[in-house]
Amino acid sequence: MKIQNQIRQSAYKADGFIKKYQKLIKDTVIPYQYSVLNDKARGAEKSHVVKNFENAARALNGEEAGDGFYGQVFQDSDAAKWIEAAAYSLVNFPDKKLEKLCDGLIDKIVAAQEKDGYLDTYFTIKDRDKRWTNLLEAHELYCAGHMMEAACAYYEATGKNKLLKSMLINAEHIYKVFITDGHEGFPGHPEIELALLKMYRLTGNKHCFELAEHFINKRGTDPDYYKKETQNRSWTVWGNNANDNDYQQSGVPVRDMTDAVGHAVRAVYLFTAMADLSSQTNDKKLFDACKRLWESITEKRMYITGGIGSTVHGEAFSVDYDLPGDTAYAETCASVGLMFFASRMLEYEIDSKYADVMEQAFYNTVLAGIQLDGKRFFYVNPLEVVPGISGVASAYRHALTQRPGWYACACCPPNAARLISSFGKYAYGENDDTAFCHMFASGEVNFKNGVSLVCKTDYPYGFTVQYEVKKGGALSIRIPGWSKSFGLSINEKNTYVKKQNGYVFLNVNDGDCVTLSLDLEPRFVWASSRVARLTGKVCLLRGPLVYCFEGVDNGGDVLSLALKRGGEVKAFKSDDEILKDTVKLSVKAVRRKTADSLYSDTPPNETDTFAIAVPYYTWGNRGENQMRVWLDDI
Amino acid sequence: MKIQNQIRQSAYKADGFIKKYQKLIKDTVIPYQYSVLNDKARGAEKSHVVKNFENAARALNGEEAGDGFYGQVFQDSDAAKWIEAAAYSLVNFPDKKLEKLCDGLIDKIVAAQEKDGYLDTYFTIKDRDKRWTNLLEAHELYCAGHMMEAACAYYEATGKNKLLKSMLINAEHIYKVFITDGHEGFPGHPEIELALLKMYRLTGNKHCFELAEHFINKRGTDPDYYKKETQNRSWTVWGNNANDNDYQQSGVPVRDMTDAVGHAVRAVYLFTAMADLSSQTNDKKLFDACKRLWESITEKRMYITGGIGSTVHGEAFSVDYDLPGDTAYAETCASVGLMFFASRMLEYEIDSKYADVMEQAFYNTVLAGIQLDGKRFFYVNPLEVVPGISGVASAYRHALTQRPGWYACACCPPNAARLISSFGKYAYGENDDTAFCHMFASGEVNFKNGVSLVCKTDYPYGFTVQYEVKKGGALSIRIPGWSKSFGLSINEKNTYVKKQNGYVFLNVNDGDCVTLSLDLEPRFVWASSRVARLTGKVCLLRGPLVYCFEGVDNGGDVLSLALKRGGEVKAFKSDDEILKDTVKLSVKAVRRKTADSLYSDTPPNETDTFAIAVPYYTWGNRGENQMRVWLDDI
Repeated sequence: MKIQNQIRQSAYKADGFIKKYQKLIKDTVIPYQYSVLNDKARGAEKSHVVKNFENAARALNGEEAGDGFYGQVFQDSDAAKWIEAAAYSLVNFPDKKLEKLCDGLIDKIVAAQEKDGYLDTYFTIKDRDKRWTNLLEAHELYCAGHMMEAACAYYEATGKNKLLKSMLINAEHIYKVFITDGHEGFPGHPEIELALLKMYRLTGNKHCFELAEHFINKRGTDPDYYKKETQNRSWTVWGNNANDNDYQQSGVPVRDMTDAVGHAVRAVYLFTAMADLSSQTNDKKLFDACKRLWESITEKRMYITGGIGSTVHGEAFSVDYDLPGDTAYAETCASVGLMFFASRMLEYEIDSKYADVMEQAFYNTVLAGIQLDGKRFFYVNPLEVVPGISGVASAYRHALTQRPGWYACACCPPNAARLISSFGKYAYGENDDTAFCHMFASGEVNFKNGVSLVCKTDYPYGFTVQYEVKKGGALSIRIPGWSKSFGLSINEKNTYVKKQNGYVFLNVNDGDCVTLSLDLEPRFVWASSRVARLTGKVCLLRGPLVYCFEGVDNGGDVLSLALKRGGEVKAFKSDDEILKDTVKLSVKAVRRKTADSLYSDTPPNETDTFAIAVPYYTWGNRGENQMRVWLDDI
Repeated sequence: MKIQNQIRQSAYKADGFIKKYQKLIKDTVIPYQYSVLNDKARGAEKSHVVKNFENAARALNGEEAGDGFYGQVFQDSDAAKWIEAAAYSLVNFPDKKLEKLCDGLIDKIVAAQEKDGYLDTYFTIKDRDKRWTNLLEAHELYCAGHMMEAACAYYEATGKNKLLKSMLINAEHIYKVFITDGHEGFPGHPEIELALLKMYRLTGNKHCFELAEHFINKRGTDPDYYKKETQNRSWTVWGNNANDNDYQQSGVPVRDMTDAVGHAVRAVYLFTAMADLSSQTNDKKLFDACKRLWESITEKRMYITGGIGSTVHGEAFSVDYDLPGDTAYAETCASVGLMFFASRMLEYEIDSKYADVMEQAFYNTVLAGIQLDGKRFFYVNPLEVVPGISGVASAYRHALTQRPGWYACACCPPNAARLISSFGKYAYGENDDTAFCHMFASGEVNFKNGVSLVCKTDYPYGFTVQYEVKKGGALSIRIPGWSKSFGLSINEKNTYVKKQNGYVFLNVNDGDCVTLSLDLEPRFVWASSRVARLTGKVCLLRGPLVYCFEGVDNGGDVLSLALKRGGEVKAFKSDDEILKDTVKLSVKAVRRKTADSLYSDTPPNETDTFAIAVPYYTWGNRGENQMRVWLDDI
């Protein structure tokens, strides 16, 4: 089968649930983030992002570099991610004012680019001689990658090529350093690989492709590379351990990788590029490595919420089946990256398991990262919080009970923003022959094979998905793995179609109305007993949504609740102002009243009750309270 | 009521279970530890303990200090704890050869004492000008305290006063520094307070008492003390955070303390001295603080095994109800210290709750610290291990599945050795009027009120305790809180005696035979649902012993086992060579076979089975395997 690709940004016009989120990003997140970049957000820490570019430009003009560089070594990437999100948003909601802000910021960025094409304000301001001497920590290639992604998105959105041209020059500079001049090494934080491949797709520039391939193939071939690099320099950013190859996935050549290890965001960014390269080159060995890594993640190291990277130590993958809910790291960015990886896996191999995980990550961890009002953000997405312990005790200090406003390390909010704004690229795919519906997203979508659809659905709360066919052709729709059965009708006539790899393949005609009915029953889910933390526990899902139990709906005490296996579950429209438009679940439960003492030989007294569950992504929106995804199963 | 005290070491001659352990300490642990001190133990890391004393003596004689100082800043204390354990053991099992080794070591120690009475090889060898400049980290007072305890024990055991005289001179030196000369500060690691009070009890030396009182009262009065001290010195041992007052309990004056916080061993050593001082001075305010701290520990921060200090971060107490089993720290030394604390609480207030915890800590965590063959030791005592995760994944690296041989920081093995060798002091107490039996320990015991008993019992596996009264008088016996009922007979005649504070008070005559029958039924115990990690779980105890489930008895898979609430439990003599002399339990259980996938909406398939439990203290003696104390409760 031909490679499937994401659709263009302009090919999907959202409606319904997705549009609401895209509008939230446009109306709240993007303006707020812009004010942060410019140090004008009230209550937010100073970011200095725009000033860094201004100061770098001054330095290049031989002036004093203003008040110098401030922030993290990867501070530039915040501007890049903002532009990328804004670019997608401009397609969703044309907005001349926003476009002007983008143009202005791009002018400042390009003005900070050095004559040889180099672009990184940290080094330009602080020490130009140290360029490329600390790939382990200094994020130069990471920042370049994000800016390349921004350049692609902005060109796609507006046709303006100033940033794209600049980043092609930047890529050429990097090509010269690492290929022509043979500078050893590869990115400490993968990102540029997937970005270069994006830029190659957009421009056909071969050097971009070669450079991406070079970095991917170079990785792990010399496990001592970072040790040597560290010995050869006299400075450090954080004193990273150069021997910890796992952390940045540098111990093993990519085609020999088996387990997903180390910093989870680094890992999935790398795997995304590997999957992309494998499908573009039909490199089966590389794709097989991607499949092993995919299985390592999704079959042994992933939370039910699509969260990955279960330990705060190195924001990293832990070992197999170590999935603690209360100390989970499960960074929002890592789930965004998992969606990238899933989307690229689909390009080589159409299989619903990839889109299942993409959806699982999106509707649970990614959306949980954002407060419903768009104003606060979680980096860390625990599956259980207990006020007094979570966010307080040493092992739980990262697992906050409430979304904070903004971080010094501002990676997650703009990452979620760019993902949501470009949701269509993940929901819909295509190759020359076929239009693919991977996820169910209301709105109009136009494919390059000529198919044009209007999708109508209340997903993720309604489970009927209607496609009004404006223009017919080959259409393939994913049937989610979680749906025990499904119904398909064309023009109200039931149609039996066999699933292939979890997709149905149809040929539809102009004017057809295709209706897919998915399983709307809430379902109990159990974990393998290899997951020590989850034995004796059960959780509740409906459609793609994982549910959780919060104190506010359950008399302040979730810990003493247990679920009655097979008990009836009722779905009802939320009666709650903050959670309006969501569906809550009521489930037969048992309240176990324990003795007052810490330990007792009196069994807990059990009373039948109903427990109320809300979608996991909405947790923590109604004040600090207990929250649990997995309840005791009795 | 008059203050109750521990009995003298020579007043108890062990038999049965305790004698077996005391013999293990004498035959295996003490000789091995001696070889470690002298760097002659095969496979053990270099300790250099004895060499440090030799080198310090050389330095004092104006010679080169040999190969200098090596080891931890508190390395001297290993010698002290060894002498203390050996001293107790000499009383249990007179042994001229061992006594000679002790004398030889004491000669070396005394030779390393400076003219002004100062004794600490780290400073004498490395830098005498730095004495007393780093109380936060440098453990000078801690080492002095341990040596004072050793001196007391050795004098009691042998009547030889060389070390005692030396330590009285040392105490006088410290008195001069901190009281006469008014040097500010108090111990970074409490220990000397309890030791000075011991030396005061033995010798009546008032300066010892005053100095202990001074350190206790000084503590926490200036929360900035360590910050200032740190600013005033240019060196550091580990770079301890001087602002973390919780860690060394230095933020609050002792009488205002409420919660047990910080490094658990530091905490209980301090609380022990506080309780001791309060009963010696009848200081109710101080005792009330001790009671609050006792309640904080035992009602909110203690494992069912009597383990305390639930987090590896700072080897410390966490917040209330944070009692994770798999990442538990629960240091062996902390439970030894908890027994010290309990024993001193009993001096002020006879209440069985103190001895209940003393017993709980001893028979579970303290004994678990020692391999059954006496050759390997746990510092960390988790309540659950899963090979592949425990000892491996970052959050579990401290929670080993097997006892290692010897540590660079060798605190726990000699601490357990001195505790076990002096078990009679904790099991039996006395005041002028009454003989107290706090714990049930076979053997002969003679009290200062004239009462003389021979105790016969198979405790902790048999629950009949017989006291043959050689000499009669006032006798008080604890009835453990866990025993739902008890029977008491004198000369085979049932006797009804009402408990007072968990003790029965009798007047026995010469030749009487008092028989106590305790509840032998295994019992299920549940934790408060405030302990998030333990909801839906149950554990199994018999007498004072907490039981656990190991893979080796349960088909290699403990994780999928759940207990049937109220299911029948059978006790049977172990059929196992390594666990011979123990009693195993067989309990009705359910094996839950889960789907192969990580998550599944198929409920686990349940099969009735029997699960086999072994005493927790015996875990990890039969190879690496899964272990769980708390099983799912269905």
